[in-house]
Amino acid sequence: MKVKNILGERFKERAYDIESQNLMTRGGYMKQVGNGIYSLFMPAKRIQNKIEQILREEMDAIDGQEVLFPVVMPATLWQSSGRFDSIGRELLRFKDRSGADMVLGMTHEEAAVQLAMNVAGTYQKYPFMIYQIQTKFRDEPRARGGLIRVREFTMKDAYSFHTSQEDLEKYYERAYRAYERIYARAGVPEVLAVKSDSGMMGGKVSHEFMLLTDIGEDTIVTCPECGFRANMEACDAITENTADAELLPLTEVFTGEAKTIEDVGEMLHMSSEKSCKAVVYQRNEDDSYVLVFCRGDREINETKLTNYLKAEIHPAQDLTNANLAAGNIGPVGLETKATVLFDRSLVGATNLVCGANREEYHFTGFTPARDLPENTVYFDLCKAVAGGVCPGCGKHSLKISRGIEVGNIFQLGKRYTEAMGMTYDSENGERKNPIMGCYGIGVGRLIASVCEAHHDDYGPIWPITIAPWQVQICALRIDDENVRAAADKLYEELEKAGAEVLYDDRAVSAGVMFSDADLLAAPVRVVISPKTLQRGCFELAARDKSFREDISAEGACEAVLAKIRELTEAVNAKVPERL
Amino acid sequence: MKVKNILGERFKERAYDIESQNLMTRGGYMKQVGNGIYSLFMPAKRIQNKIEQILREEMDAIDGQEVLFPVVMPATLWQSSGRFDSIGRELLRFKDRSGADMVLGMTHEEAAVQLAMNVAGTYQKYPFMIYQIQTKFRDEPRARGGLIRVREFTMKDAYSFHTSQEDLEKYYERAYRAYERIYARAGVPEVLAVKSDSGMMGGKVSHEFMLLTDIGEDTIVTCPECGFRANMEACDAITENTADAELLPLTEVFTGEAKTIEDVGEMLHMSSEKSCKAVVYQRNEDDSYVLVFCRGDREINETKLTNYLKAEIHPAQDLTNANLAAGNIGPVGLETKATVLFDRSLVGATNLVCGANREEYHFTGFTPARDLPENTVYFDLCKAVAGGVCPGCGKHSLKISRGIEVGNIFQLGKRYTEAMGMTYDSENGERKNPIMGCYGIGVGRLIASVCEAHHDDYGPIWPITIAPWQVQICALRIDDENVRAAADKLYEELEKAGAEVLYDDRAVSAGVMFSDADLLAAPVRVVISPKTLQRGCFELAARDKSFREDISAEGACEAVLAKIRELTEAVNAKVPERL
Repeated sequence: MKVKNILGERFKERAYDIESQNLMTRGGYMKQVGNGIYSLFMPAKRIQNKIEQILREEMDAIDGQEVLFPVVMPATLWQSSGRFDSIGRELLRFKDRSGADMVLGMTHEEAAVQLAMNVAGTYQKYPFMIYQIQTKFRDEPRARGGLIRVREFTMKDAYSFHTSQEDLEKYYERAYRAYERIYARAGVPEVLAVKSDSGMMGGKVSHEFMLLTDIGEDTIVTCPECGFRANMEACDAITENTADAELLPLTEVFTGEAKTIEDVGEMLHMSSEKSCKAVVYQRNEDDSYVLVFCRGDREINETKLTNYLKAEIHPAQDLTNANLAAGNIGPVGLETKATVLFDRSLVGATNLVCGANREEYHFTGFTPARDLPENTVYFDLCKAVAGGVCPGCGKHSLKISRGIEVGNIFQLGKRYTEAMGMTYDSENGERKNPIMGCYGIGVGRLIASVCEAHHDDYGPIWPITIAPWQVQICALRIDDENVRAAADKLYEELEKAGAEVLYDDRAVSAGVMFSDADLLAAPVRVVISPKTLQRGCFELAARDKSFREDISAEGACEAVLAKIRELTEAVNAKVPERL
Repeated sequence: MKVKNILGERFKERAYDIESQNLMTRGGYMKQVGNGIYSLFMPAKRIQNKIEQILREEMDAIDGQEVLFPVVMPATLWQSSGRFDSIGRELLRFKDRSGADMVLGMTHEEAAVQLAMNVAGTYQKYPFMIYQIQTKFRDEPRARGGLIRVREFTMKDAYSFHTSQEDLEKYYERAYRAYERIYARAGVPEVLAVKSDSGMMGGKVSHEFMLLTDIGEDTIVTCPECGFRANMEACDAITENTADAELLPLTEVFTGEAKTIEDVGEMLHMSSEKSCKAVVYQRNEDDSYVLVFCRGDREINETKLTNYLKAEIHPAQDLTNANLAAGNIGPVGLETKATVLFDRSLVGATNLVCGANREEYHFTGFTPARDLPENTVYFDLCKAVAGGVCPGCGKHSLKISRGIEVGNIFQLGKRYTEAMGMTYDSENGERKNPIMGCYGIGVGRLIASVCEAHHDDYGPIWPITIAPWQVQICALRIDDENVRAAADKLYEELEKAGAEVLYDDRAVSAGVMFSDADLLAAPVRVVISPKTLQRGCFELAARDKSFREDISAEGACEAVLAKIRELTEAVNAKVPERL
């Protein structure tokens, strides 16, 4: 392929703040069509095709059968699982010409069950896994960051069916390993698997695969001591409280205008960990109130709270109907219709400051174990904190990072097969619901994430296994007959040898040619110019600056092929064995 | 792959009337999800992947750049071409969560122009072609025939951009040849290109690629004498009239209840070709009337009429407001507000019967050249007929067949670039609109059409280049140790050699095994049974019954590979050279 023939323009001006979006826009990889909707130019489509091929190979290797589900599905299918009603507006609903309700697929559990239903009626057919690589649509309210969070995207989604939890778990391990292989083959072996919250998918055990970067939307909790890893949403929070030697009496004190933990703490010379804070939410469905008490230096984990309540919530906007003394809410002497919950960060705490449920007053000397009813239950509703206790090893070792989710795997259980009535005859003749797992990877997001993790100021640094082209020939001063002849010859030889070659034979300056090459980012570059020819050689360089050397003109083709092999082997060396 | 592991069930009962739908359902290739919406099981997806690969290779070979457009597009994009309003309800429109109007892509001319806009601003960038393989949705009122006419389908669509009509035509020839190669490589070299009507796409020259079969929805006109081919919709109709020696006077005659051409003809002893028939339509937009006169034995070509009127029409339902004497409408003495058109089948006709615009009366002796105003214009508005005059060679040689459209190519011209304002600077500095071509192939329809054209009563007969698997091993009496050992060994050897092998090692009867093999339709079959082993050999047979021979057990792997090569070469031998 010649650079001059690729549709798309490369330019220098910074286009966006998110680096992958900036570089992929500047490099002519994609163009926005609508909010969160993109077209891909050839270079991005080539990356996508390569990733799809890796996905296919790895899914086939764990006995996956490639199938194809529809993008547009009848609402009845989603009603059969209950999700037509339970999922919010990110599920795009519409009516077709006959007035029938339809949805745009944002995930395909229902379609997978529909396909497998009635053709897997006996235990001998199990286990099996079906997968597809297909377009999905999720009506995101906040599309952002180019391909990082879009509304339409290409996804590999896989669904496995089993007759026992043990069999699912055994398969889940294989899928987990396949995922590690996929990321390693795509050149990002540093992707971390973390325990996650299953959210709207249902099911219990699930993992997200995270690429750590500062622009990530997810918060990841890791322990360098024991290797523990979890998404903040799903991370157990452990708080250690040491009881004071002397328990003070509960005493009402005037605090006037001081309402926040900080203000009250300052006034009373108490640190925030010696306080009990009230956080008020409302349920989305009926605006009813939920009141959570936790230690003053902790934050509520809204995912845990949502899961506990089995209801969507939002921070309370308006307390006028709540009969609560905003800023002075406390757990003692509280009269309210709100659901009241206590976080386990209060367990063992002593001598805290808390609201007195009276304007301008707080209590000091609040000790939950003494001052709350004996049957009070404490739940895990707060976020883990940096330096906090690791749920894995118990050390004060937790680290907090940002990450982009580039894949996830779920043990779904019978959530869908029960709801949709999919059954099989077990070995001893019982009708049973199969147990499912599901396994997703968004292709576009993976591309953008690799760019986010591997780039410099000049462009993406694609791993050779997914780079649009493996090698680029830069012919400087193409008007020089010798340059033209040498470059044409190498281009022809490399193409013939099956290398993926980009050839820049434009009559442009070295500056333009190199900056375009940095954006198109073939991992290997060959520069041919009157100067190199004078030395009787070409220059061989790496996009990631890891090497730059002269090669003889005669041996150039073989030298390039050897370099491609070397880089490919370096990527593959980090790919773990299949399970 | 082992047959027992493929998800999907094969069965014997006839499922549908359309044979491809019947066999592909019985063979476990697909499952309906909704009206005109299907999921594909693994065997169909494998066929689809192979066809997609052929499409990619042929599109790349004519300098195509693979890109990806979105399935969901903002309405504004379709408004910019005018098609948001001009296309009917087959374009699915809906609102996203922000209330913005969106459409589901049924074709991507607008998206192609949007992608190319602003990145092809000078003549040096031309020509170029971009293509994608992507899901489309067309809200068909009459989905039918399994994958033949669906609402959601995978399509390869390509768009070329040029700076001159000559350049477009040169490229169009290459695309035409690429299409011939695609069908030949897919094992259906008999696909015919016919001149077609461009319909909603705009543009002038276009061809459809047709696979002739009785269940086809299109009517194809061919001439065995000169090779002329056209879709009925676009076929010139030539009618030869021989003037009678004596011109009779126009005479009003009583015809009473006789209203139809047949009844009036019978009463007056005239054949239908000696009559002038009136056909009444209404425009969809305002129900205004359109009245067409043609020779009594001809039929109106509604596509031609629509194109002439530049308006959608339907046969008149209700003549109460038309001020027309239904059954007695004639061109002489007619007083109407309807648009009145004359078909050229009336040119040169003499002594016809026609309505007298008066209840119960007709005229005899109607001679258009004498009885109509001198400035009457005659248009080509009728269908060609079997045995009619060929527009190519002038002989009375026309043949009428049915065909399935399996692809189309259009010379679009500036229809979209003008409407959307895409321009480039020409060599002499003028701002110009590029000239476009577009080129489509529906993948699922092609699969079903191949099945329609190539099957027997027992299943599809897939050409080896697109068959889900190349060879199937049928191990009869798998409980026999020798059978098991021999079959396992051959399976392993063939897999190792890179053949695509299906292995049936189920403990089922020969009848079940062979009928399943016929449905899965691997072109080469190896039967291993106690009987063949007794003869010291395996049986090698073709799905299409073209051969059946014994092969030695030792040389079996090589014999199968040779047969696969032979069948593949036979397909490739019919592929024309690239242009």
